[in-house]
Amino acid sequence: MNRDERYMSMAIQMAKETVGQTSPNPSVAAVVVKDNQVVGVGVHVRAGEAHAEVHALKMAGEKADGAEIYVTLEPCSHFGKTPPCAQAIIDANIRRVIVASHDPNPKVSGKGIEMMEKAGIEVRTSVLKKDADQINRSFFHYINKKTPYVRLKSAMSLDGKIATSTGESQWITGKEARQDGHTYRHISDAILVGINTVLMDNPKLTSRIEGEGSHPIRIVLDTHLRIPPSAQLIQNEEAPTWIFVGKDVRAKDIEAFADYPHVQIIQQNQDRIDIDELLQHLGECKVTSLLVEGGGTIADSFVRAGKVNETITYISPKLIGGKDAQTPVGGKGISRLKHVESYQITSTEQIGEDIKIVSIKRED
Amino acid sequence: MNRDERYMSMAIQMAKETVGQTSPNPSVAAVVVKDNQVVGVGVHVRAGEAHAEVHALKMAGEKADGAEIYVTLEPCSHFGKTPPCAQAIIDANIRRVIVASHDPNPKVSGKGIEMMEKAGIEVRTSVLKKDADQINRSFFHYINKKTPYVRLKSAMSLDGKIATSTGESQWITGKEARQDGHTYRHISDAILVGINTVLMDNPKLTSRIEGEGSHPIRIVLDTHLRIPPSAQLIQNEEAPTWIFVGKDVRAKDIEAFADYPHVQIIQQNQDRIDIDELLQHLGECKVTSLLVEGGGTIADSFVRAGKVNETITYISPKLIGGKDAQTPVGGKGISRLKHVESYQITSTEQIGEDIKIVSIKRED
Repeated sequence: MNRDERYMSMAIQMAKETVGQTSPNPSVAAVVVKDNQVVGVGVHVRAGEAHAEVHALKMAGEKADGAEIYVTLEPCSHFGKTPPCAQAIIDANIRRVIVASHDPNPKVSGKGIEMMEKAGIEVRTSVLKKDADQINRSFFHYINKKTPYVRLKSAMSLDGKIATSTGESQWITGKEARQDGHTYRHISDAILVGINTVLMDNPKLTSRIEGEGSHPIRIVLDTHLRIPPSAQLIQNEEAPTWIFVGKDVRAKDIEAFADYPHVQIIQQNQDRIDIDELLQHLGECKVTSLLVEGGGTIADSFVRAGKVNETITYISPKLIGGKDAQTPVGGKGISRLKHVESYQITSTEQIGEDIKIVSIKRED
Repeated sequence: MNRDERYMSMAIQMAKETVGQTSPNPSVAAVVVKDNQVVGVGVHVRAGEAHAEVHALKMAGEKADGAEIYVTLEPCSHFGKTPPCAQAIIDANIRRVIVASHDPNPKVSGKGIEMMEKAGIEVRTSVLKKDADQINRSFFHYINKKTPYVRLKSAMSLDGKIATSTGESQWITGKEARQDGHTYRHISDAILVGINTVLMDNPKLTSRIEGEGSHPIRIVLDTHLRIPPSAQLIQNEEAPTWIFVGKDVRAKDIEAFADYPHVQIIQQNQDRIDIDELLQHLGECKVTSLLVEGGGTIADSFVRAGKVNETITYISPKLIGGKDAQTPVGGKGISRLKHVESYQITSTEQIGEDIKIVSIKRED
C-alpha cells in the first residue's frame, strides 16, 4: 500500500462507520494531510449537515493552505443544502486532491474534479475506488435507478429450511447471527415484511442498535388490509409504518387507521401489489435502501421481479428435513434455470456457529 | 511448531494422500528420523499389504538402530494379515516413538504403546492428535460403531433448492463444485441413491477419478424393485450394484437379475427399508464409509434416523424460489427444533463461484 492508498484507506474506514446514518446522502470521509501529517479529518454525519470535506478543512484551519485532501467521493460542484465542496477546497488553497469514487450521478459526475483542475489543483482519482464504491453501493444504485437498493435477508438450515414442517422457526440460527442481522436494519432506510409474517410473528421490526434515527421505516405488503390494529407495528410508534394495500380495499377500512399518525396506508392501482410500482413509490419518498425480511412469498415476488440487489444469508449447520418445511424463497419461483439470476459471493464468514454468505447481483 | 510437530505434520500430510485407498484399514504414514535427518518414510498403501511402519523401517535399514519413528496412528500389537508393527519397531532397535492418534479399537487401544514401553522405548503420544484423528474419522467411526460413516452430499441454491419447481436440476452448481463432489465418491466405500434418482437421472455413479479400485459400491434403495434392467447401474459393470428391497418383492422378480454377476439384490425383513438394518448389513460387509447422494426422501430417512455423520453442501449463489421446488432433505422431516441435531462446521471455502460447507455431527 503506497502513501496515497494509506491515507485513502484511513478515510474509507471512517466513511464505513457512518453507513446507515447519512441517507439519502452517501457516506463520505475526508483527510487533510500536510507535510506527511494528518491535520484535518471529517465525515458527513447526517443529511442537511456539513459535508466531510468542510469538516476536515475547518479542523485543518490555516494548515489547509498548500495541503493535500483525501476524499472517498468526488467533491460536489453544486449548491444543495450546503455550498459546493469543490469551491471550499479551492478557497482553502489545497494543493492536491485525491479521490476514490466518482460522483454516481451522470449529470454531475466529473464536474467537481473539472472545477478544481481548472483552479490549478492537481487531482488524482480512483485511488481504492473499488473499496470506496462498495461503501456506497446502495446509494449509487439509488442515484442511478431512482429506486431503493434491495437486500434480501434470510436465515436457514443447512438444508434450506426457515422453519420446521410444523412452522417452528425460533430459532434456526444462533444469537450472534441474529444480532449481526440487526445491523442490516440499522443501515436500511426501510424494512419490509408480508402480512403473513405480521400475523404469525407480530414483530416490532425496530433496530435493536441504540442511537437516534436508526429505526427504519416499517413496510407491510398487505393486499387485503388484514393487519389488526392490535399489531405491534400499529401500537408501537417508534418508527413510521407504511402499509401497501391493493385497489379493492375500502376507504372505510383505511380510515380506521387514521388515529395512528405514524401509520400510512398506501393504496395501489392493482388488485395485487406490484413490486415495480412499490419500488418507484419508495424511491420517490427518498427510501434509498430496503431490507426484505420475509416471508417466502414476499421474497419470491422480489426475486421474480429481478429486484434483489444483495442477499444476506445466515446458514445454521442443522438438517431439518421435510418437503413441506418452508424455504427462504417460496411462491411460484422461477421454473427454468436459464432464467435464474447468478449472484456473486462477496463474503463468507463464520458468525457464532453459523455461516453468513453475502452476495450481490452481477450486473449491478 | 516444534520439532516433534514438524515431523508428525509431514507424516500426516503423507497419510492424507492415501485416504480412500486403504479401506477397511485406516490411512497411516510413518517417518523414521536419525540425527535430525529423515532416513525412512512409509505409508500403508492398501489392505493386505505392509503397514506404514514396516515400509519406513525397511527404507531406513540399519539407520533405524537408535532412531526415532513418527507414526500417525498407534502401531498395532496383534497379528492380522501382517505381524505386529510394535514388535517390528522393537526389533529394529528404535529409541523413541512419537504417536498422533491412539488405536480407536477399545480392545487393543494402548496395547501397542505398552508393548514398546515395556521393551524400554520412550513413547510420546497425542502429537497433533486432532489433525491425525481427522484423517481417519470415518475409520474410527466404523471401528467403534461397526456401521459405515455416513456423508450426505448436496448441491443447492442460496435459497435451498436442488431443482426448480418444474424439476430442472442440471446444473445448479458450477463445474468446479461438481468435480470437487466427485472426490467424495473416490474416498467412499459405497455410494447410495434412492430409486427415484435412478428412474429420473439414470446415473452411472462411478468415480470420475482415474485409478484402480476407486469405484465405490453402488447402492440403491428400491423397496418395490422398480429398477429397470436397462438402467446404467445394471448394464454398467464397472462397480458392484447392491439393490436393497422390501420383504414384499417376489423371488421371481429378484431372479430376473441373476444374469448380472455385479448386481446383488438384498431383501430386508420389513416392507420399508430400515436405515439401521441397512447400515448394520453394510458394516458386516466391511463398508466403512457411505456417501448418500440423493434424493430428498432418502436424505430425510438418514436425517430422521440420526445417521448422518458429515454433511458436504455446495451452495450456488442463485435464488430459484418456488414453494414446490425440492430441497436437499425432503420427506417428513423433523417437526420440533429441539429434536434437530446441531452439526459443527469444519470448513467453508469458495469453489469456483460456489461455496462449499462441510460440517460434522457434534457427538461423534
